[in-house]
Amino acid sequence: MKSTICNLGIIPFNFSKMLHMQLEYFMVFLLYFGEKIGLYFAWLGLYTQMLIPASLVGVFVFLYGCATVDDNIPSMEICHPKNNITMCPLCDRVCSYWKLSTACATARASHLFDNPATVFFSIFMALWAAMFMENWKRRQMRLNYEWDLTGFEDEEVSGDHPRAEYEFRVMQKSLCKDQKSQQKVEKLTYRDRLPAYMTNIVMMLLMIGVTFAIVFGVILYRISTKAALHMSSNPITRNHVQLTVKTTAAIINLVVILILDEVYGAVARWLTVLEVPKTDKSFEERLIFKTFILKFFNAFTPIIYIAFFRGRLVGRPGSYLYVFESYRMEECAHGGCLMELCIQLSITMLGKQLIQNNLFEIGIPKLKKLIRYIRSKQGAFQEEERQKKLQRYETDHFLEPFAGLTPEYMEMIIQFGFVTLFVASFPLAPLFALLNNIIEIRLDAKKFVTELRRPVAARAKDIGIWYNILRGVAKVAVIINAFVISFTSDFIPRMVYQYMYSPDGSMHGFVNHTLSYFNVSHFQDGKETMDPLHLGYSIEICRYKDYREPPWSATPYEISKEFWAVLAVRLAFVIVFQNVVMLMSDIVDWIIPDIPKDISLQIHKEKILLVDLFMKEEQGKVYILESRPSCISTLVCSDHISLPALYANK
Amino acid sequence: MKSTICNLGIIPFNFSKMLHMQLEYFMVFLLYFGEKIGLYFAWLGLYTQMLIPASLVGVFVFLYGCATVDDNIPSMEICHPKNNITMCPLCDRVCSYWKLSTACATARASHLFDNPATVFFSIFMALWAAMFMENWKRRQMRLNYEWDLTGFEDEEVSGDHPRAEYEFRVMQKSLCKDQKSQQKVEKLTYRDRLPAYMTNIVMMLLMIGVTFAIVFGVILYRISTKAALHMSSNPITRNHVQLTVKTTAAIINLVVILILDEVYGAVARWLTVLEVPKTDKSFEERLIFKTFILKFFNAFTPIIYIAFFRGRLVGRPGSYLYVFESYRMEECAHGGCLMELCIQLSITMLGKQLIQNNLFEIGIPKLKKLIRYIRSKQGAFQEEERQKKLQRYETDHFLEPFAGLTPEYMEMIIQFGFVTLFVASFPLAPLFALLNNIIEIRLDAKKFVTELRRPVAARAKDIGIWYNILRGVAKVAVIINAFVISFTSDFIPRMVYQYMYSPDGSMHGFVNHTLSYFNVSHFQDGKETMDPLHLGYSIEICRYKDYREPPWSATPYEISKEFWAVLAVRLAFVIVFQNVVMLMSDIVDWIIPDIPKDISLQIHKEKILLVDLFMKEEQGKVYILESRPSCISTLVCSDHISLPALYANK
Repeated sequence: MKSTICNLGIIPFNFSKMLHMQLEYFMVFLLYFGEKIGLYFAWLGLYTQMLIPASLVGVFVFLYGCATVDDNIPSMEICHPKNNITMCPLCDRVCSYWKLSTACATARASHLFDNPATVFFSIFMALWAAMFMENWKRRQMRLNYEWDLTGFEDEEVSGDHPRAEYEFRVMQKSLCKDQKSQQKVEKLTYRDRLPAYMTNIVMMLLMIGVTFAIVFGVILYRISTKAALHMSSNPITRNHVQLTVKTTAAIINLVVILILDEVYGAVARWLTVLEVPKTDKSFEERLIFKTFILKFFNAFTPIIYIAFFRGRLVGRPGSYLYVFESYRMEECAHGGCLMELCIQLSITMLGKQLIQNNLFEIGIPKLKKLIRYIRSKQGAFQEEERQKKLQRYETDHFLEPFAGLTPEYMEMIIQFGFVTLFVASFPLAPLFALLNNIIEIRLDAKKFVTELRRPVAARAKDIGIWYNILRGVAKVAVIINAFVISFTSDFIPRMVYQYMYSPDGSMHGFVNHTLSYFNVSHFQDGKETMDPLHLGYSIEICRYKDYREPPWSATPYEISKEFWAVLAVRLAFVIVFQNVVMLMSDIVDWIIPDIPKDISLQIHKEKILLVDLFMKEEQGKVYILESRPSCISTLVCSDHISLPALYANK
Repeated sequence: MKSTICNLGIIPFNFSKMLHMQLEYFMVFLLYFGEKIGLYFAWLGLYTQMLIPASLVGVFVFLYGCATVDDNIPSMEICHPKNNITMCPLCDRVCSYWKLSTACATARASHLFDNPATVFFSIFMALWAAMFMENWKRRQMRLNYEWDLTGFEDEEVSGDHPRAEYEFRVMQKSLCKDQKSQQKVEKLTYRDRLPAYMTNIVMMLLMIGVTFAIVFGVILYRISTKAALHMSSNPITRNHVQLTVKTTAAIINLVVILILDEVYGAVARWLTVLEVPKTDKSFEERLIFKTFILKFFNAFTPIIYIAFFRGRLVGRPGSYLYVFESYRMEECAHGGCLMELCIQLSITMLGKQLIQNNLFEIGIPKLKKLIRYIRSKQGAFQEEERQKKLQRYETDHFLEPFAGLTPEYMEMIIQFGFVTLFVASFPLAPLFALLNNIIEIRLDAKKFVTELRRPVAARAKDIGIWYNILRGVAKVAVIINAFVISFTSDFIPRMVYQYMYSPDGSMHGFVNHTLSYFNVSHFQDGKETMDPLHLGYSIEICRYKDYREPPWSATPYEISKEFWAVLAVRLAFVIVFQNVVMLMSDIVDWIIPDIPKDISLQIHKEKILLVDLFMKEEQGKVYILESRPSCISTLVCSDHISLPALYANK
């Protein structure tokens, strides 16, 4: 049995056989591990299947970006050799003026992710998420039927039995109280739990605060390193400033996320133990809820910062915003923050998947097994001898104990977040998720069979709280994508320019329109560049990306009318996008029935058969009773409930 | 029995006894009419109970408006005797300039409905709707348990039997086909239904078009009558122009809505008959869906026009927007369109309730009964004699037949729409709904018992499609209220002025800020007023309500920066309001469990008892079988299904 599963786990991948194999997996896992783990693999299988169309469409969207990069007028204008726009310095004193044409490569690259097809793709992905939910409901119903779980109810299993820790606390409490009054205490009240709840809230806020602080620290690192490197006298160092800073910052971010993930997992468990939940089910749900919140913040805070805050709080030339009075806030590279969002997203997602999901998941159990093995080796036995003498259950004892499905689900939910939440900025996310999952499903299978002790088989009807979390993520994804498209990408400013300001209805002149003017004599003292003749000639006016009045207007550097017009259109787009997508998701939800038709027919038929069976049996019994009156006394009779009515009502 | 119910129907109303009485109603109706009608009254009862807190809060909000009307700075400024603002004429040629101070009364009145408390009230009502849904789920669950419906499934009743009309169509089709091929046709396919579906879509669009056309017609009536009355030489007529036009237009609207309601009901039924649905349940659902859409459009199109379009498409002085090149579009009275929305809403709601719900519902059955009675009287019998000779079922035959619960539910859903959809503009709506329902619940009871033939009792587990419609209305209500607050009321412009433009952070100067300047020499030829000296002196500059550049700016009469700023804040408010309220509704949904705890415990206990009972019976049977082997042959045996397992799985 075990060897069969091992072989399945390492069978070379074949797309056409995928569906069939998944089914085989289910059956094998079901027999060996029970329904709960079977449902996890079924869910993972469906999710992976559903990722295939999503990654296909994502690749097409990306290819569309590649194909149209040469027709994109704004990047053509930036790259045009006659383009002679002088930009304001990117940092105080040490940076100098620069030509917009040097941003040509960035502008072309950002078109790959910031084009009209991404709008279509994020609508598509929102509907995809709704479809996935519906399909899972149907698949779950079908599995419930096939695995004979239709009548099974959660409370029938361990769900209702109090945990030993809870009983202990109740006993403690009743002992304390007994000395004062004779009343028996039977349960913990809110008052008993209040200290634990308070600790919970405080610790959760503290942990989220730590996440924010670390993100802020990384920002400070980026700003200060950039300034320091700019000051370096070595010209090679200065040329590689951007690359060095971005790479190291992203790696620091990734490492911090990986470390905090482990810390947060431990903190969530500790907090849940403090709460002393009554049942195992309640324990699990509370633990999942806390872990989810902490890990979600951990994974997505840096990304949310880049998407919605970076480059927005910079102030303007002559009146920049400073952190700790000396560090100027970062700006995005020309071409919008979407490019940076995309880089951060891909590094976090790929890094997490490669290191955490695959390396850790396989490496750490192997390592632990090795340590346990070495430890036991320190005994006096001869290795070879021992191996031969040991029983199966003794060798299995060297394996890592099974820690529940929570980490597996959590990993997938965070991935689902990457695939749906910011998909507008990174259409290749579903493809990477798909590749990861194809490996993951096999690694998980192998791990469960060969690296972990065999878990106690448990029944379950559904994937529990995870379904609600998935639904929540899908809902949040709609609004986040709306904001990414309208605020992070340049989609709305381009539309507004084309339909409201363009003299000929084309995109020509868009770049010029988004840049405001600054008179360099208005720089504050001590903030002007030290190298004003860097470009070879003296500069009077430099440009910066913002919608502000020019220096020669009546209200220089005030926010201009264009800013408010673009903002209004951006907000209107959010409202329209959110409501249209929500409506479409509701329609998908409404059109696809929750129970597959064949299953509902089958259940109905079986119910009728069952009633028939009982009826016939009743008749038989009546016949017996009539033929031999002495039988009556042995049957339990009820006065007012007739058995046929009971059957029919069931 | 019947007389008991009659007495209940006319018992004088007593608030403290209400809950108790409702319960009595349920039991009586349940016994006499069956669960389906019982559920309707239970639902109506819960809705009416829930309206009590809503109307209390609504009255408080209204009283808050009344109490603060003297502290409202904008209306104080308008009413101030030193206020000397000259407004541009409200119509071409015949109207003249007017003093803003004459709008004092309107400005004060509009404060009653347009104050910060209404924002609070619409959030409250959105949460109220979510609470109502949850409470109904719980009440339904409780009734299901008490009325022994927990195991009952809809398909067990008539739900699955094809309607006679459907069978007839299938037979017709198979007869036609038989002549060509010998294959038996067993059901209608999409191709058979295509003509009916096409007719449906076309007719629905046509009907909605008719609604729009009528609303447009009423607008034209208002515009043209106003112009005509302004031209009248009689000064009294001219003084009462506004009142006359508004009153007659509202009455026309009401009459049209009442007539179209009847027409649409008939059209929806005809269209559903055309579709030939398979089962009675499907017929009812399709009919309800169509009727709902048509009646909803009918009731709410004029209100939506006033809330979101009126006063927005007027153009500006010197360049007004004209319909048919001669009618200028209407403006709202000073103080915002919220006042007009409130008037229209109250007239429609009260008129519909008084005339349609009460007069029609009681009057028409009585009238029909009379007609039927008079017709039968034309026979030769002596009246008195006949009355005595007639059996009960013969007298009952003079009653109107029962037409289903659809009209009753529909009436309440439309009322629910009035209570939730535009509640931001009319906080007294819940109060009027409550008063109506207190009468309605009694009139309905009386009607069902004395005016209609006794309906066939039907079982039902829930209120069916109506629950989904209610949920849909509650969802739409959130977004409509967000738009009413931000676009129809002056709430956002006031906030923007106070925090962005006000020199001293107060509301002083708000009125002046919202009015733009117009140079009267810029009027188009033939459009200027015929009576320029109406106010006693010559006018050079008049003011109008809009955010536009003054005539002396570089771009005269262009939309100003303030307009875009206010628009952006309005849209941002919509996003924040919608998402916060949706989140809060979700939390309410999540906190309140769907099944009351005592009921779920009770169901669980009974299930265990039932399993015990069956187990004991099994044992008894085994005992019989053992004591007398001949019994075996009479029992139905199954090879692979053990009966205890079946019980446990149930």
